[in-house]
Amino acid sequence: MPEFALIDRLRRRVRGREDVPLGIGDDAALLQPPAGEQLAITADTLNAGVHFPVETAPADIGWKTLAVNLSDLAAMGAQPRWCTLSLSLPQDEAAWLDAFADGFFALADAHGVALVGGDTTRGPLSLSVTAIGSVPPGAALRRDGARIGDDIWITGTPGEAAAALALWQQGELDVTTPAAEAAREHLRQRLLRPTPRVDAGLRLRGLAHACVDVSDGLLADLGHLCARSGVGARITLEGLPLSPALRALGDRRAREWQVGGGDDYELCFTAAAADREAVQRALEFAGTQGHVIGRVLAGEGIQVLDEEGCAWHPPRSGYQHFG
Amino acid sequence: MPEFALIDRLRRRVRGREDVPLGIGDDAALLQPPAGEQLAITADTLNAGVHFPVETAPADIGWKTLAVNLSDLAAMGAQPRWCTLSLSLPQDEAAWLDAFADGFFALADAHGVALVGGDTTRGPLSLSVTAIGSVPPGAALRRDGARIGDDIWITGTPGEAAAALALWQQGELDVTTPAAEAAREHLRQRLLRPTPRVDAGLRLRGLAHACVDVSDGLLADLGHLCARSGVGARITLEGLPLSPALRALGDRRAREWQVGGGDDYELCFTAAAADREAVQRALEFAGTQGHVIGRVLAGEGIQVLDEEGCAWHPPRSGYQHFG
Repeated sequence: MPEFALIDRLRRRVRGREDVPLGIGDDAALLQPPAGEQLAITADTLNAGVHFPVETAPADIGWKTLAVNLSDLAAMGAQPRWCTLSLSLPQDEAAWLDAFADGFFALADAHGVALVGGDTTRGPLSLSVTAIGSVPPGAALRRDGARIGDDIWITGTPGEAAAALALWQQGELDVTTPAAEAAREHLRQRLLRPTPRVDAGLRLRGLAHACVDVSDGLLADLGHLCARSGVGARITLEGLPLSPALRALGDRRAREWQVGGGDDYELCFTAAAADREAVQRALEFAGTQGHVIGRVLAGEGIQVLDEEGCAWHPPRSGYQHFG
Repeated sequence: MPEFALIDRLRRRVRGREDVPLGIGDDAALLQPPAGEQLAITADTLNAGVHFPVETAPADIGWKTLAVNLSDLAAMGAQPRWCTLSLSLPQDEAAWLDAFADGFFALADAHGVALVGGDTTRGPLSLSVTAIGSVPPGAALRRDGARIGDDIWITGTPGEAAAALALWQQGELDVTTPAAEAAREHLRQRLLRPTPRVDAGLRLRGLAHACVDVSDGLLADLGHLCARSGVGARITLEGLPLSPALRALGDRRAREWQVGGGDDYELCFTAAAADREAVQRALEFAGTQGHVIGRVLAGEGIQVLDEEGCAWHPPRSGYQHFG
């Protein structure tokens, strides 16, 4: 199947819309940006064997490829609009591409994201997306706005993706009850089909002072936010919500996964303590849970306190692809 | 070297500017699009061993990675503004990255392109760029506007990149004179450091009816333009300018390279015959040569006539990465 036919297979799934005066098929696509708004732009690549196990189903790869990018736009409080996709495939497999597109467009259509360009090349399986959203000037949720005394919030229940990956790598569950099996399946879905918190990001405009998405691990990403804001932080394990699935698993590594594990794609943000109810309501409208897990302090670095109020040190703090 | 340090190495080379209210370092960058303009967006990937020989110097890879994308914006008549870069590296080599950045930013700075995002991952050497430019509504040079009777133009002297690649693969020159050696070095530069015809594209706004960049080969790309415009074309080998280097080489494959070879990144466009002088002047202002190589006809398909006016059939017509 020639390259152009592969691109055509994707192009057929793209619907026309007003903010795309010219779609895929020319040297470049034309976009109509919304008047008076700024654009938020992010680029993330997933490589087989590095960012997902090689045996991952193509539809799950398609979903996640876009999800990790939409999560970055969510963390900016941006409205997703367009994306490009560069796809490196070891061989020309129409069936693989169709399944990949099923996952990719399921998420793209849910968020009104138009695929407006891309490239299909031969090479080891790799997927690069650049995603673009829009946000009114001054409304973006940056990393550098945290204020001393702010609440620190997390959406959802972190640690589930890291738990799923650990179970996947380990192969067997230590305890195999129906509840543990159901928990494992739930966790797998959280790893394979993360939910970018787009609506939460939009509703946090004007409320959150600073925001980051948790892709490298809570400690690592909150660390970036604090460093950019010139502040420190204290979080408590007690405040960190343990999901029913993590609880059902009963694994003693749960807290490590929550604090150090990556791939959750939840939002970690800070907001004035006086806005606690407004934030809670905003997240409810967005269909997302939120919990206060700590407080922004003067200084630098992040303290983690365990259930007894003692300093707790995770065995690792976020992962990096190099080094 | 951790991933963040690699990104920092690139970020240090990026200058601040007004249309980038927030650069690399947050979940996404913020862009300020020019009021009243549309955006042109394109994405192209280069893989080692597929799009360039594995022994290519990193500075040349850096240049070409951006050049192939700016060429697409040039073909739209768009003013380049921003880009993202996703870089897959087999290992963490600061020296490699610095040399790559030398080539990349040499071209980016020449055209005022700001790097606003990206990703560094571990994997086989691969480079994905998404480039964005701006263009007033209605001014973009699309592929679908060719009119019957239009002149068909080409910028520069096509065939040089294909000649360089053939010589590279073949290793030795059949004839080794000083002139042939100089020609080979010139051709290598044309393959490794193609010049995106950005200024030509900008000056062709309002003159060219349809435009495409010649990346897959003149016949293949002119074929796309004609298909999108619903027209046919006739071109003559006589009209196709043979560069001094190609002439010095004296290789009988020169015409094949000109018509079928890829990687030239010249612009092929159509314009009214009455505008011939205006087009010539516009290209001169852009510092680019241009030649009329044929005419748009009713019907479909492209006829090529040789110097005797007889139908000429190239052994191949453009290359594709798959199939």
